[in-house]
Amino acid sequence: MNLIIVGTIGLDNIETPFGKVEKALGGSGTYAATAASYFTSPGLVSIIGEDFPKEHQKFLQDRKIDLVGVEKRGKTFAWSGFYEFDMSEAKTLKTELNSLLDFNPSLPEEYKEAPFLFLGNFDPSLQLQVLEQVKKKPFVIMDTMNYWISSKKSELLEVIKKVNLVVLNEGEARQLFDEPNLIKAGKRLLELGPEYAIIKKGEHGALLFSANGFFSAPGYPLEELRDPTGCGDSFAGALSGYLSKSGDISEQNIRKAVIYGSAVASCCAEAFSTNYAKSISYEDIEERYKMFEEIRKF
Amino acid sequence: MNLIIVGTIGLDNIETPFGKVEKALGGSGTYAATAASYFTSPGLVSIIGEDFPKEHQKFLQDRKIDLVGVEKRGKTFAWSGFYEFDMSEAKTLKTELNSLLDFNPSLPEEYKEAPFLFLGNFDPSLQLQVLEQVKKKPFVIMDTMNYWISSKKSELLEVIKKVNLVVLNEGEARQLFDEPNLIKAGKRLLELGPEYAIIKKGEHGALLFSANGFFSAPGYPLEELRDPTGCGDSFAGALSGYLSKSGDISEQNIRKAVIYGSAVASCCAEAFSTNYAKSISYEDIEERYKMFEEIRKF
Repeated sequence: MNLIIVGTIGLDNIETPFGKVEKALGGSGTYAATAASYFTSPGLVSIIGEDFPKEHQKFLQDRKIDLVGVEKRGKTFAWSGFYEFDMSEAKTLKTELNSLLDFNPSLPEEYKEAPFLFLGNFDPSLQLQVLEQVKKKPFVIMDTMNYWISSKKSELLEVIKKVNLVVLNEGEARQLFDEPNLIKAGKRLLELGPEYAIIKKGEHGALLFSANGFFSAPGYPLEELRDPTGCGDSFAGALSGYLSKSGDISEQNIRKAVIYGSAVASCCAEAFSTNYAKSISYEDIEERYKMFEEIRKF
Repeated sequence: MNLIIVGTIGLDNIETPFGKVEKALGGSGTYAATAASYFTSPGLVSIIGEDFPKEHQKFLQDRKIDLVGVEKRGKTFAWSGFYEFDMSEAKTLKTELNSLLDFNPSLPEEYKEAPFLFLGNFDPSLQLQVLEQVKKKPFVIMDTMNYWISSKKSELLEVIKKVNLVVLNEGEARQLFDEPNLIKAGKRLLELGPEYAIIKKGEHGALLFSANGFFSAPGYPLEELRDPTGCGDSFAGALSGYLSKSGDISEQNIRKAVIYGSAVASCCAEAFSTNYAKSISYEDIEERYKMFEEIRKF
């Protein structure tokens, strides 16, 4: 097993100007593992309820995602939200944590020596708990969200200090340091310890910071944005999947990983839930990667 | 004369979190011509008042900007504004149009056959008036602002239909078509007639649309943003200057022009008014151009 992903699995009710879905497959772990599955067979550590639909379980298995680390107890975590006309922000209607309240992530023995670990967006206290379980020192990638910056900032900073690559979106990066300038915020992330920091900017692409250089990735020219849910998780999942497949953590290769992350995230945005993975092949991802080369030549 | 620039010259009172200036050199024509002067000696068509400070006039002359087309009458147009902490938006305190109320742009005879014409941000009715004066069909670049989209939309659309390259910022592009998706907005600009459309996104770079392709330019990683006033005008001015110097209006060369525009605009943002031009050399601009190549590679 090259890559372990720890994150949530949930059931989403989502409404956007382009439609709606109910009890759709969602959660940070789901999106990340689905995206990573284009490059490797990741192991997913998470929790679901007894009510978790069989077709969702089948979808994850068909993607060759290892589910040995997924516990089953109580009722599945559920989220309801919607997006308005410009789709810039998810508005939450209801969050039911359910079995997530009992989530106490425990890595199966065979996962503890995996060389790559992605900590998806969940409670930073639990992210720390996962880090204590690994045996060999893996390359650790992490994500978070505004909620944890507000409610558990000191724990979150502890996690950031211990990882190799931190991924935030632009609002989170600004919020974390109360710093409007993203270049300064990126440099402050590096000062905390990670070798690499990525700031995701949605349609505007992503910025990669490291001691060796600065990289600005373009956004994919997306016209058919249907559902932005999980795009950030998909970005980080595809990036982690590509890195674990190549085993190369040089700055140059992380630039490529950012483009693969952007390519998969752009596919995710074109369909509800993780449905893109039902029609998008690995060759489609490679085609988007080439498109990224074209749109930045000068 | 390769390039004619028509736009305003004004006296600006500007306050940002990093300082303030009074009666500083400003206006769309000033910023554009100063930026263009890195590449060519543009002719500027504008109006100033009898009170226009001698040192400002000397600055423009030292930049080898031809001022034959600048009328002098009454009092100089003046603008007062400020920026808050995040500097995302100029807040206007006072606008005194003064002699701008009499602005009736008239191209000197020797300007009428110039191969490149930049219509800076001013009244679209007057932009149309300028277009009626040209003799040979020049390559026309235009800019505008939200005010004209609200107040003179039909005249503005007439101008857009007649130009070769339209430059808007992202807010203006969205406003013009009531379309949140910038890719769709860019395509709609092309449908109006221009061969090229550019959407400026400030720190996030710029998008170039044409029948032959799509280009996404990165933003310059700017840490020392002191005064954003005139950056958009400087972008378009440098782009026009570079195009007129090279004489090449291929899509490939316009991509390069976008990068030169971004390079000069990033310098403009680092100092108040047009002061950057007092210390930044052409070699500095070339160095930034190379930096843009570096931050793009993957």
